[in-house]
Order: sequence, then C-alpha cells, then structure tokens
Amino acid sequence: MRPFERRRLLIMAEGQFGAHSAKTAYGVIRYGRDDVVAVLDSTKAGQNVATYLPGRDIPIVGSLSEALALPNPPDGLLIGIAPTGGRLPEDWRSIIGDAITAGLDVLSGLHTFVGDDPEFAAAAAAHGTSIVDYRRPPDRLETAVGRRHGPGKRVILTVGTDCAIGKMSVALELRRAALAAGDLASFVATGQTGMMIEGWGVAVDRVISDFAQGTVEWLVEQGEALGDWVIVEGQGSLDHPAYSSVTLALIHGATPQAMVMVHKPGLTGHDFDHLPEASFPIASLPPFIELHEQIAGLVAPSSVVAVALNTSLYPNDDEARRVIEAIGAETGLPTDDPVRFGANRLWSAIREGVDALPWVTGT
Amino acid sequence: MRPFERRRLLIMAEGQFGAHSAKTAYGVIRYGRDDVVAVLDSTKAGQNVATYLPGRDIPIVGSLSEALALPNPPDGLLIGIAPTGGRLPEDWRSIIGDAITAGLDVLSGLHTFVGDDPEFAAAAAAHGTSIVDYRRPPDRLETAVGRRHGPGKRVILTVGTDCAIGKMSVALELRRAALAAGDLASFVATGQTGMMIEGWGVAVDRVISDFAQGTVEWLVEQGEALGDWVIVEGQGSLDHPAYSSVTLALIHGATPQAMVMVHKPGLTGHDFDHLPEASFPIASLPPFIELHEQIAGLVAPSSVVAVALNTSLYPNDDEARRVIEAIGAETGLPTDDPVRFGANRLWSAIREGVDALPWVTGT
Repeated sequence: MRPFERRRLLIMAEGQFGAHSAKTAYGVIRYGRDDVVAVLDSTKAGQNVATYLPGRDIPIVGSLSEALALPNPPDGLLIGIAPTGGRLPEDWRSIIGDAITAGLDVLSGLHTFVGDDPEFAAAAAAHGTSIVDYRRPPDRLETAVGRRHGPGKRVILTVGTDCAIGKMSVALELRRAALAAGDLASFVATGQTGMMIEGWGVAVDRVISDFAQGTVEWLVEQGEALGDWVIVEGQGSLDHPAYSSVTLALIHGATPQAMVMVHKPGLTGHDFDHLPEASFPIASLPPFIELHEQIAGLVAPSSVVAVALNTSLYPNDDEARRVIEAIGAETGLPTDDPVRFGANRLWSAIREGVDALPWVTGT
Repeated sequence: MRPFERRRLLIMAEGQFGAHSAKTAYGVIRYGRDDVVAVLDSTKAGQNVATYLPGRDIPIVGSLSEALALPNPPDGLLIGIAPTGGRLPEDWRSIIGDAITAGLDVLSGLHTFVGDDPEFAAAAAAHGTSIVDYRRPPDRLETAVGRRHGPGKRVILTVGTDCAIGKMSVALELRRAALAAGDLASFVATGQTGMMIEGWGVAVDRVISDFAQGTVEWLVEQGEALGDWVIVEGQGSLDHPAYSSVTLALIHGATPQAMVMVHKPGLTGHDFDHLPEASFPIASLPPFIELHEQIAGLVAPSSVVAVALNTSLYPNDDEARRVIEAIGAETGLPTDDPVRFGANRLWSAIREGVDALPWVTGT
C-alpha cells in the first residue's frame, strides 16, 4: 500500500456496470480520492461511464490488456462488484492473476480475502504488488464500554429504510456540505466502499458479533479525533431480515445524538433477492422514525432530525421535488435529496436541529 | 470427541465458584448430560458444591492431582469461567497443559481458542486427547434467506432485561416441562454453555455479524427437525450497550411466533462492569415487552406470551411468590420462576398462549 499516493484505478465491474450490484464501482467513482482510469466490463466495452454517471469521462474497456494500453495505465485493480455466492468466479481469477503479474495492486472488499489465496499471495510477493482486503477485520476484539462522546462532539448516523439506497452517499454529501460551511466534520466509514473512499474504517458486517458495538464505539472515537461533527455511515436497515443486527450495532455502538433517515421513495419491497414476492415491504416513515428514536433511546437519547431521499426512481426533477415536499409534510422534518440537489440546505437544517436537541445543549 | 459417551468432567472454576462469572460451571452442573466428578477451585478446596447448589453432591478440589486421585477420576477438563480480559492467565495454562498430559480432553467456551495454541495442540496430539472449542464458529457463512417455519412448528425465544439472568435456564426448564407434558420439544443452544449442555448449536456472539441472522435461521431449521416446539436460548438484551445487536440477531433470525421475557426483579442496573455507576438501568417491563413485539414484528409477528422471573434476590419463598404475583398483575401475563418453582404451570400457560396467536392458528 502507498497510503499517501493517489492510485490510478481500473475498476472491475464485469457484466454488471450500471446494475445495482456495482454500487462499489459507483461509490468509488463518485466519491473516491484515487483516479479511475477505466472500468472493465466486456459487455459494455467501447462505452463511457458518462452515459451512466453524467460528467464522469472514463472509458469502459473490455480487457485488462486494453486498460494497460491506455496512455495513463492503471496501477491498481479495484473489485467493484460482488460475485454471486461470495466465491470468485474462475474468469475473475485469471484477471486478478494477470493484473498482479502486470504489477497492479489488488483492492477488494469481498468477504473471501484475495490476499489469503496462496496463488495470489505468491504472485503479489513475486511482483512486488499489494493486495488490500478492506473487509479484513481489525485484530482488536473489544466489547463496547459505554464510552461517552467528547465535549462538544456531535455524532450523526445515517439510517435507512433499506440496504443499498444511499446511506454512505448521504453521509459523504453531508460531510462535504459541512466542510463547505466551515464546520469541522469527519466521515466514519463502516463498510468496504466507504473505506476504499476514505482510506480508513472497518467493515462492521465482518466483525465478530460480540465485538460489533465495541468496534463502532472505537471508530467513533477516531472520528471525534478528526472532527467536531462526526458523520457515521449507516448499514442495512432495522427491519431487514438479514442485516438488522448490523444496523443496531451501528445505532447502539455509535450512540449518535442525531440520525438522518435515508429513504428511496417508489421502492416497495426490501433488497432481498431470496424472496422475490416482496414479502418484506418498505416501512412507512413516521412510525419507523419513531421506532428508531425509541430503540436508540434504550442506550442513549437520539432524534431523527432530517430525511434524505434517494429520488432516483423519479427521473423528472419537478416530480422529484414534489415527492420531497410531500415526504417533508408527512414527517414534519427537513427533507431533500442531497445527492441530486446538493446537501447545503439539508446540512444547515441538520446542524440547527442537532444544536437544539436537549441532550446536546445540556438543558 | 466421543459424542455418544458421557464424559466425567472436572470443572475449572479457580477462585470464582459461587460467583456470577462461574455461570458456565453452574449451567453445566445443573443441566449437563455429563457426570461432574469435581470442581477445581483452590480457594474453596474441601467444600462441596451442595453448599451452593443444594442437592448436588460434588467435591470441590484444590488441584488437578487431587481430582485425578478420586475413585472416579475425570476424563475431561471443562473451563467453567471466563478469564478477565479474555486471555488465559499463566496458572490456567499450566493446569490445562497438565490435564492434557494426564489424558484429559479440554472443553472450552473461551473466545481465545485453546485448540489454536500450538503448545496445547501438540500436547493433545501426543497424548491422544481432544480439545473442543465450543465458540469456534461454523464454516458455513450464509446470510438469512427469510426462511418460513415448517408446518405445525412453533418457535419460542427467551428474551430478557439483562445478560446472565437465566435465559438459557428458562429455555431448558421449559423444554423439560414440555417433554414431561408429552410435547415434542427441542432446545436450540445459541451460546457456549448451552452447547456444552446440549452437544450442538452455535455460539452466535462469535459469528461474523453479516451471518449472525443467517446462522440463527439455520439453527432453528435444525431445531425444527428435532421437535415441534422449538425453544431457542436467547442472548443479551435489546437495551444492552454492548450486546443488543446479538439479541436482535436472535429475534430476527429465529422469527419466533412467541417470546418469553426473562427478568430478575431487584436488579437495578445492567451487567456492565465498565460503568459501575448504574448508567444503564433495567427497563420497565410493560413498555419493554411492547417494544420487543414491535421490533420482532418488523420481520415477523411475535408476541410475548409469558414472563419468567429469576427471583434469586428474594431468598424467602413467600416474598418471591408475592413478587411473581405483582409482576403478573403489572404485565397481565402468566408469570412464574420456573427454575425455583418448576416450569410445568408456566409451560402449560405458554402452550395455550402460543396456540391462540392469530399467526399460529392462521385465522
């Protein structure tokens, strides 16, 4: 790893760029600090990322050798998608092996650690390249100790009505707006994509359950050392059949004074491909917000101070604005789509909302 | 391991027998299938377990060699306590090493795996003994798939107002009462002590967070293969600053049709030794019960059908009975102390309560 250099990344998204499963690729292109020199997806070779993410002029190539022939060739291969079943498909193996042989670092957020594969590890050693497995948990194994926030520190957690609807993006946009407003803000990455973007953090879903809350508590402590406004990336949703416990580890581990509810209007069922028949509908916002405050309050008082919408299912701007207005009226909370329309107004409302909370003012 | 033989156990509880931290020792003595031939605690050598657990005539010895000289010597050493800080103290190491040399198996529920210690592993191989680390997680790494219970299966989860107040004991007493009543019941162990008693299960707090709910779902499937009434051992509490996410993994992973709330009247603050000043009070029962139903209901409907009290802080039986009556009136639910006064009446009330639930009757 060369932590202080910007890498030149080739993002592997074979067969999936533009799909839901390529959210890591999207996140790194949108918010990462490294240069993305190309995306690898042979099914879209010759196209440009700008078609999918307006303003991002990045070629989509069909092979590793095509990427290596670019005027500004990559020095790292970032795995931007998750393989079905969690195991590396055979054709991915050969691309990863070839990339290492060509001197590229490999950056992965998969549950299966690339660096633990004897063949890849030997190749990386032989070619002097690094394999970074972002999901590898820290050696630290500590349960939560009930740590209190430092004086003057304000911790804000993004929560949501589903997985993969933008909790990380909202947190990053709010951090950007906070910094723009002159507020000393930090971002706490709790998932592999956030870590790829920010350079530190822990993929909390990979931590042993007993230590999940203790790890989040420790991450927030680090976030407080970096800023006065600590914006923590949430995970999953409290009503998700598979991931709700990770969500609660974030809520009770971070003990945020305030939460921002992220919601994707128009989505009817959970991101849960095992049961296509929409057995798990998306919650109704007002009672779901109240339940979050009740559950957080079991450990420390917390209030949902804003709603951040992902209005991507409404392509028309006017329609999206009407949806924002309607949900603002329904919840009685400051509401906006900070990714689409900018986060400055929402940040300003959040800042005001947090500073008025009795457990923040101390009254 | 000799799974079909009963072991003759020496339980190591050095310096802690009779204390809160020896709950594994107590659980195995009370509910285990193996013979316990002695307890090792040099601070209580010469005493008898019957002083602490009436009716259990088991000698407390001061050394391993004393145990080996018994007419019925042990063939296994079970670690009945957790060392402070999770690391093995040096004097425990020598006892474990001597036990292996003497041909004893070692049974441990520590986070630190005894079998991964090169010295112990080599000694066990040399002496033909086994090291069983109950907390070692399964290789299976699967997220929950939203599995439905089999037809006619009823799943009951014990939940509680704190850690270490008797959720496992209540589940075991209810299973015993169910079997006595002719109901085909199984017990699903979700912690290391339950596994030591039952011989199967998973210590859910040791599972990677992303797979905690999927693992519980899989355990319940196995429980359903063993019985029609599946009684799942709960973990932690939903308001515990360090362990609430494990509790939620049990609730959303098991999707129980009914829950039994375990509570220890007289306890004022959480079992949370980091903050002695009782910063985390025990919840008030009626709203806490309602919150459990709300939170469980985010994934599948569930009702708290009974309250199981641990009245050990009330030594006088009449007083304990008054407390039971008062909490029954407060909650409007069948209430008893099944460990102290027997579980038959409570089981009968639970059975009736579960069978009347609309999501069980299908009406």
